[in-house]
Amino acid sequence: MTLMTSVLVSANLGKNHAAFSARMAQVNDLLSASSLLTWDSRTMMPPGAVVCRGHQTATLTMLAREILVSDETLRLLDASEADAHMLAEDAPERRALQQTREAIAMHRRIPAALQKERAELRSTAQAAWIQARAEDRYALFAPYLEKTVELARQLAEAIGYSEHPYDALMSLFEPGETVATLQLLFAELRAGLLPVVRAIAEKPAPPSDFLRRDYPELLQEKFAIEIAKKFGYDLTRGRLDATVHPFEISFTRDDVRITTRYSRNYLPASLFGVLHETGHALYEQGVDPAYTRTPLATDLPGLYAVGGVSFGAHESQSRLWENHVGRSRTFWALHYPALRQTFPDQLSDVSEEAFYRAINRVQPGLIRVEADELTYDFHVMMRTELESDLIAGKLSVAELPEAWNALMKRDLGVVVPDNRRGVLQDIHWSSGQIGTFCNYTIGNVMAAQLYAQATQEDAVIEQALATGDYQPLWQWLGDRIYQHGRRFSRDELLIKATGRKLDSAPYIAYLSNKYTSLYA
Amino acid sequence: MTLMTSVLVSANLGKNHAAFSARMAQVNDLLSASSLLTWDSRTMMPPGAVVCRGHQTATLTMLAREILVSDETLRLLDASEADAHMLAEDAPERRALQQTREAIAMHRRIPAALQKERAELRSTAQAAWIQARAEDRYALFAPYLEKTVELARQLAEAIGYSEHPYDALMSLFEPGETVATLQLLFAELRAGLLPVVRAIAEKPAPPSDFLRRDYPELLQEKFAIEIAKKFGYDLTRGRLDATVHPFEISFTRDDVRITTRYSRNYLPASLFGVLHETGHALYEQGVDPAYTRTPLATDLPGLYAVGGVSFGAHESQSRLWENHVGRSRTFWALHYPALRQTFPDQLSDVSEEAFYRAINRVQPGLIRVEADELTYDFHVMMRTELESDLIAGKLSVAELPEAWNALMKRDLGVVVPDNRRGVLQDIHWSSGQIGTFCNYTIGNVMAAQLYAQATQEDAVIEQALATGDYQPLWQWLGDRIYQHGRRFSRDELLIKATGRKLDSAPYIAYLSNKYTSLYA
Repeated sequence: MTLMTSVLVSANLGKNHAAFSARMAQVNDLLSASSLLTWDSRTMMPPGAVVCRGHQTATLTMLAREILVSDETLRLLDASEADAHMLAEDAPERRALQQTREAIAMHRRIPAALQKERAELRSTAQAAWIQARAEDRYALFAPYLEKTVELARQLAEAIGYSEHPYDALMSLFEPGETVATLQLLFAELRAGLLPVVRAIAEKPAPPSDFLRRDYPELLQEKFAIEIAKKFGYDLTRGRLDATVHPFEISFTRDDVRITTRYSRNYLPASLFGVLHETGHALYEQGVDPAYTRTPLATDLPGLYAVGGVSFGAHESQSRLWENHVGRSRTFWALHYPALRQTFPDQLSDVSEEAFYRAINRVQPGLIRVEADELTYDFHVMMRTELESDLIAGKLSVAELPEAWNALMKRDLGVVVPDNRRGVLQDIHWSSGQIGTFCNYTIGNVMAAQLYAQATQEDAVIEQALATGDYQPLWQWLGDRIYQHGRRFSRDELLIKATGRKLDSAPYIAYLSNKYTSLYA
Repeated sequence: MTLMTSVLVSANLGKNHAAFSARMAQVNDLLSASSLLTWDSRTMMPPGAVVCRGHQTATLTMLAREILVSDETLRLLDASEADAHMLAEDAPERRALQQTREAIAMHRRIPAALQKERAELRSTAQAAWIQARAEDRYALFAPYLEKTVELARQLAEAIGYSEHPYDALMSLFEPGETVATLQLLFAELRAGLLPVVRAIAEKPAPPSDFLRRDYPELLQEKFAIEIAKKFGYDLTRGRLDATVHPFEISFTRDDVRITTRYSRNYLPASLFGVLHETGHALYEQGVDPAYTRTPLATDLPGLYAVGGVSFGAHESQSRLWENHVGRSRTFWALHYPALRQTFPDQLSDVSEEAFYRAINRVQPGLIRVEADELTYDFHVMMRTELESDLIAGKLSVAELPEAWNALMKRDLGVVVPDNRRGVLQDIHWSSGQIGTFCNYTIGNVMAAQLYAQATQEDAVIEQALATGDYQPLWQWLGDRIYQHGRRFSRDELLIKATGRKLDSAPYIAYLSNKYTSLYA
């Protein structure tokens, strides 16, 4: 990809801007270090270190916030802005200044006491949730969820909003998205996808039991990492490790790590998990090097070192590489022989077509993280509905399980047998996160929009995919998305790349075509 | 071991002390995080991350220093000291306050410009040294060493000293030690050990070629980690990884990690390496938990998160467990069968006695890190002599290689064939470290003094060692040394533990007896 190497510490902007940039680099260093401590705690750390590690990451994040909101940073920001007015409105330097100003204002609006209370709640709520889930006793978790919702409401009031308090919460993860915009999007998805789901429910399921044979972990790793490298994952600036809950994390574009969980008796878990995290990693590795350690590679509102512009935009890349590329017929036409060579005994009686059908099997189920591509968004949409109703006070924590079960029945036609497999299944609420489920669906929609545009715009991309050359697609995404880091908003990026804001049509078309043909 | 769980945030000391302790906990968090970044950079980090990682660790250390020397910390320190005068002079709280005051004063005496110059030099000198060593061209490194010596002199002037500028440099690693005290110590060692070295030079060397057979790394690891666990290394608060230059590092007592380098064709390297680092780890893991995140577990002058009191005291524990325990006849009488079981083919024709002799073979050589127990200190003593002469201006950088070679000839009777295997062999000078070689020998002396005292004081300790029970020795060391962290000075600890300050007699007696008997 062609990297636009804009120099953020522009000579014209003078000493103030250099001092401002140095301070913002410290903020990024602290948040990058905090992320490394998090990576370590989930991959390498001995169990005895958990309490001290909590203190360490809290200190790093707290100091990053202190430096960000300090009078000194604001003074340098004022001086730099005065110097920067001659730059274009969307010049990287001006965008960095503007985003820093907004983040400082936001952080200053949040009372320290509220932040403290939220941190304290997190440290107790998770243990309560773990116990509640283990014993299937919602009542054990309800008081903590009550408090979490209450503090989230306070946070929303502090951040501020025009229409719905939930909008304020979403602004931390998916800036610009609102309850109103989501209602429209969700209505389109429902109208477009429910008929496909319902039609498939009538059809016989393809066999997939062979995916649960014995697949040694080391061979899984070997195969998946080869694909990740083909996609463009640069292992001189990354690595793959095992963990319990897989994730991608970065400490500048020069150190972008992914993790996976090997399930010896279920091949797709790690295989598609690695492709998913690789998509995230390609985004981070592709950010313009000139943005390294600047606000354009730092989530200042969220106090998190990341180069991608929103959680949804990030998810678009994981889903694009996992699904549009990795679960496609083209992909397996090319790579199934190598997979069969890796697992000759396990796959000797499985044809390419049978494998392709099995990894794309649709089955409405109870658990979000196990959902297939077609039903996944229904899990997301119901959670978003429930969350926004909780925040608005339209739904009480006591009524939540019943509301949950009703929506599962309505959308997916499944009966929730217990709260463990229902309302208690996700970790999000116990860690204080409200307002972040929608990112998954936005990622799906955005992935389809970008993939459709890329392949329509340049025929070479699909030709190359058919030969296992992922470079043209990677380069297109790098040019349109990755390199820009956090300079443009998600919708600005989409407009530049596809001519329009987030649009559900390509996603609905993709899923309808793929699954109608699969279950024809 | 019985842990004295003194509570450092004493209610009597009130709010000021609590605020002071919270700030010092931040300092420790930052330095612990910096150490984790260092650990990661040497074990896990992809190569592309090296530049950004440098920025990150520099930022963390710089912020730790800023918080330490800030007016706010000084204000809280003043207020806490006013409250603390009713405590005993050696109460942990008072010692923590006193050490913080001294560290602040020291850091404030060092000009920021000098620190900056030292950091910049480090980043270029190491590359020059690597090239100079590879090409055996001392002239490539000489200008950097010139500058390093010059900046070290300036540092010594800033820190301050009464007799010799080298004393100021040593105070960073081995507080209390001076050129004068070392001259006495070295004279004793020379007088006591040179005759033994000379006598052995006449004797035939025991065979040791079987140590260079094929020893698969995984089996080496398995054997060594079992011994480390027996010694008392708690793997719920630690872990072992592979690296190029082995080290021990800690991020509080609850996360103490060791590393080793497996040499497939040289068994002793990793075997004794792991026992050595385990000794360091036992020290860190044994510090009073009440000192966690306090100045009593933080090297404030050195800006380093560590619980041990001096580099020499730390080395005493690595050498004690590696040599007094791990290279003893008692140890191998007990563990050789298990080693032979681990490597049946490699050791089938090697008797326990032959093995014991081989791992204790004496051979005056060129390279410090390959030296045996008996000749090691001569490498250290000559470096210390040369360093202090360089700092005093008695020796020039140009004259150094010749002086080096002359001392090697004088003490060990070896002829240095090139500078690669002479004056260019150590990394220390290229990383700006001057004043730290003596720690190795002080560690050896202190190890012997403690081991002799422990075994004389309590007969159970040696009886237990003979049965493979390391708990009584570990407990004695924990009570006398480990638990105290940085509360007492090295000599205070020695006086409490053995009734006297650092004393070379037990060390000379130990080496003389062991090697005279081995080579009888």
